[in-house]
Amino acid sequence: MSLQKPALDPMTLEPRTGSGYPEPYRSRVVPREKRALGDPLGLKTIGINHTVLPPGKESSMRHWHTHEEEFIYVLSGEVVLVTDAGEQLLKAGSCAGFALGTSDGHQLVNRSSQPATYLEISNRDPKDRAFYSDVDMLFHGVGSKPMFTRRDGTEF
Amino acid sequence: MSLQKPALDPMTLEPRTGSGYPEPYRSRVVPREKRALGDPLGLKTIGINHTVLPPGKESSMRHWHTHEEEFIYVLSGEVVLVTDAGEQLLKAGSCAGFALGTSDGHQLVNRSSQPATYLEISNRDPKDRAFYSDVDMLFHGVGSKPMFTRRDGTEF
Repeated sequence: MSLQKPALDPMTLEPRTGSGYPEPYRSRVVPREKRALGDPLGLKTIGINHTVLPPGKESSMRHWHTHEEEFIYVLSGEVVLVTDAGEQLLKAGSCAGFALGTSDGHQLVNRSSQPATYLEISNRDPKDRAFYSDVDMLFHGVGSKPMFTRRDGTEF
Repeated sequence: MSLQKPALDPMTLEPRTGSGYPEPYRSRVVPREKRALGDPLGLKTIGINHTVLPPGKESSMRHWHTHEEEFIYVLSGEVVLVTDAGEQLLKAGSCAGFALGTSDGHQLVNRSSQPATYLEISNRDPKDRAFYSDVDMLFHGVGSKPMFTRRDGTEF
């Protein structure tokens, strides 16, 4: 029997496979599958994605947030975590957390031959901005239309 | 090689196996193993526990929060989720979320013969209180000394 709220089987949700990134960054992350779990359960303060990252793909460009903490927990497969601490291989059962107030950008890269699955969790703050460590891009979360620009504010 | 921050292997942490509950409720939940993952990673806005619930034990008394949302994701084994929607069996890969502003208490019960493991995630709000659906208990999160009392405010 299928689960009823407040329970949920993530695999019953349609995934989002696109990305708001401009090229050439978009092709580096798609078609990862993201299933938002908090929204259908009515959660407002926490965002939760169940994400499947195909071989060869990146979770995001390396970045850090101004107002949103992130936590990831690897459910299956393995990913390489890239931060100032270097590269670390995270297998199922490992986790990582990215506190506020640090400019140490992070990303996950699937260098294996199998899909990797992880949960990504964050608080929600409309004031959030994201800075990208290695590419000329900024994320502006302020306002009704979140957008990506170059670091100087010009549009792609 | 062991993981370095911002990565973490949860199993390297010492678990908390006690409970702040008074008896007879305490014996119904201990010795579940809780490992706080957000704290050692410096997260302030989100609380994350990796919890191992032994056979026959309950995650908590059935309850709901005034200011904290909760999300749980089953990693291994199975638990029975008890809410107003009835009892539902949650297996590995299933999740549940408990939004604010609902008085539908929830708890997880391990009725299987194997340990069950899950992640529990919540926002953090010092104004939080918890109401218990089936037992004469209240949780007061306000102030420097969180405490449990009877519903009329008297101490156990």
